[in-house]
Amino acid sequence: MYIKKQRLLTPGPTPLLPAALHAMMGSDIHHRTEDFRTLYKGVLADLKEVLGTANDVLILVASGTGGLEASIQNFFSPGDELLICTAGKFGERWIELAKAFGMPATILKAEYGNAVSPQQVEEALAANPNFKGVFVQASETSTGTQHDVKAMGAAVKKTDALFIVDAITGVGTMPLDIDGWGLDVVIGGSQKAFMIPPGLAFVAVSGKAWARADVATAPRCYFDLKRERKNAAGGESAWTPNTSLLLALAEALRYIKALGMDNLIANAQMLAEATREAMKALGLQLFSSSPGSSVTAVRAPKGMDSGVIIKEFRNRFNAIITNGQGSMKGQIFRLAHLGYFDFHDLFAVVAELEIILAGQGLPVRFGSGVAAVQNVYAEAALAKEAVLTR
Amino acid sequence: MYIKKQRLLTPGPTPLLPAALHAMMGSDIHHRTEDFRTLYKGVLADLKEVLGTANDVLILVASGTGGLEASIQNFFSPGDELLICTAGKFGERWIELAKAFGMPATILKAEYGNAVSPQQVEEALAANPNFKGVFVQASETSTGTQHDVKAMGAAVKKTDALFIVDAITGVGTMPLDIDGWGLDVVIGGSQKAFMIPPGLAFVAVSGKAWARADVATAPRCYFDLKRERKNAAGGESAWTPNTSLLLALAEALRYIKALGMDNLIANAQMLAEATREAMKALGLQLFSSSPGSSVTAVRAPKGMDSGVIIKEFRNRFNAIITNGQGSMKGQIFRLAHLGYFDFHDLFAVVAELEIILAGQGLPVRFGSGVAAVQNVYAEAALAKEAVLTR
Repeated sequence: MYIKKQRLLTPGPTPLLPAALHAMMGSDIHHRTEDFRTLYKGVLADLKEVLGTANDVLILVASGTGGLEASIQNFFSPGDELLICTAGKFGERWIELAKAFGMPATILKAEYGNAVSPQQVEEALAANPNFKGVFVQASETSTGTQHDVKAMGAAVKKTDALFIVDAITGVGTMPLDIDGWGLDVVIGGSQKAFMIPPGLAFVAVSGKAWARADVATAPRCYFDLKRERKNAAGGESAWTPNTSLLLALAEALRYIKALGMDNLIANAQMLAEATREAMKALGLQLFSSSPGSSVTAVRAPKGMDSGVIIKEFRNRFNAIITNGQGSMKGQIFRLAHLGYFDFHDLFAVVAELEIILAGQGLPVRFGSGVAAVQNVYAEAALAKEAVLTR
Repeated sequence: MYIKKQRLLTPGPTPLLPAALHAMMGSDIHHRTEDFRTLYKGVLADLKEVLGTANDVLILVASGTGGLEASIQNFFSPGDELLICTAGKFGERWIELAKAFGMPATILKAEYGNAVSPQQVEEALAANPNFKGVFVQASETSTGTQHDVKAMGAAVKKTDALFIVDAITGVGTMPLDIDGWGLDVVIGGSQKAFMIPPGLAFVAVSGKAWARADVATAPRCYFDLKRERKNAAGGESAWTPNTSLLLALAEALRYIKALGMDNLIANAQMLAEATREAMKALGLQLFSSSPGSSVTAVRAPKGMDSGVIIKEFRNRFNAIITNGQGSMKGQIFRLAHLGYFDFHDLFAVVAELEIILAGQGLPVRFGSGVAAVQNVYAEAALAKEAVLTR
């Protein structure tokens, strides 16, 4: 039995920023005090800054799905016609929510591994002027697929429909010009590129969306965003907040601001690129035809269940990576890049993957995938980059 | 600017066990209560168990050097003749201590990178029957050199001299049969293979040594080991203890016991072997003719200051490795293996070293050093090993 440090290398929860984790120990504050209000106002301001939006940004004590539900409850009414883009497991969640709240949905479905195109959205909107909202994942985590939300936003902007973007793994891994691209409601989650544990959802709301909140009749109480907005203005939350995660978030936002949101995105993009090069060097196929930078989905070698790779990562190295979800289970494995990941992680993960594949009898030359990552690093001339300590 | 996680890859402080770090948050206990006594007794019992000795083991609030000083103060008197083996910076510390306490020392000096042989010790003891103590480093951290303390102990055992072993980086990286080999006083430190921060020294004391404590006249008060022994029997420390580090230590000892001390040692030995193979693959020379498993000292390539490598590790990867000390500074760099290190760490470190060397114009084939590490891993068939989670 040798030392195998547990390493969380999944697309959420993601690796934790140590300083954020340690900050959670300051949780002995009460949420109806000036100390808390200072913390909350600071976090809300920093969130707006890193999201780069003038829209209101609110925090919910919920996982990301709670943020999705809030975006249905607050801006739509039973009977509203919705246009839902789905390219995987998380797109399907939109369909479930629409059904639960009695809103008829038209589905633009891409096969797993493909993306819905902006043209499809444009055509659907032209065919039916009654759509009240268009729903999409900026980054579909289950397949590692990225959507062109900029072009989709341009199409939706011309209509009365709201554009609702699940950017839970999109924030911090791809450029998102919330205000410029007309992203009316954008949902994020704490356990993704924000580098802290699960438990908080973020919702950015445009003026166009707020106007709709005044007439929307879907039932809501806990996720009442107008109520949250009113309380947030005074530095408080409508209900009891998750104090420990807010302390962690304050620390993580300080880190992200020091790093720069653009750099956080570039970091994920570069690791994704290096991962794609390594997979190519190892003769493996990518799953997505439109790969994003939050997570890279890779097809298991022919005849091999991808679960073997997941298990071997855990057994041999105590590293936790993810399988495919739903019908993709056994077909793919997914390597994450969102948030607190660096080249050091990737060098090791690729070296480990090589060992696992060789152990399964594949003809792998040790170091060949690692070399592909090293080449991406070297070509990017990262040596000149400053160090952001801790 | 990209994400570069800070990684402490030095031979002390070593990487921290997360569970031990988190346990420090329970520090709100008082040290003259039953809660503390339970903690302290448990830690002392576990320390004895992992050190594999029936001798008394005591804990001092001090760095390792405090433990060395205690071993001079408690068992010797001014004017006592000491035989000191020195093979580097830490051997020289024995000389400094002997001088400070007025004890004339005979020096067995090995050039940096070499070890003092057991034969030298045996001959010196035969030539002078007046030696009251023999001093050595089990592992000389400054040069990555290991001493044969088993053979030395056999020679000392035949005399009245005490055998005082600085095992600060020896514990957990090499077999040490304290009782069987006649290691009368053994010193350890918290920030080494024990995986917790600096601040505690450990001293194991044999019956032969305790008999000498009764007649030793060197001045002592804070490091009075008899006083510590008396208090420890009641579950307390003589002076105010370092509560937070004891909480961390309790957690680390739990981990080490679950892993097995033999496995902790085998882990360091295997990483050291893989490191040596990687250096060979990269055309680099080891510094020590008697390399140990706590740290591997590597000569910088011809014409290069090793400080460049240390700086590049920090600037490019935010990884902290160590230079040579004293006159070895600039000549060598040192890669640590003691405590909470695993193959994942080593895959990445070697990939990074390859990039650094290539950046300095050396003809390095990317992945070739990593492959050497992968081969050591694969040959050891570590796949069959169980995972010790967290």
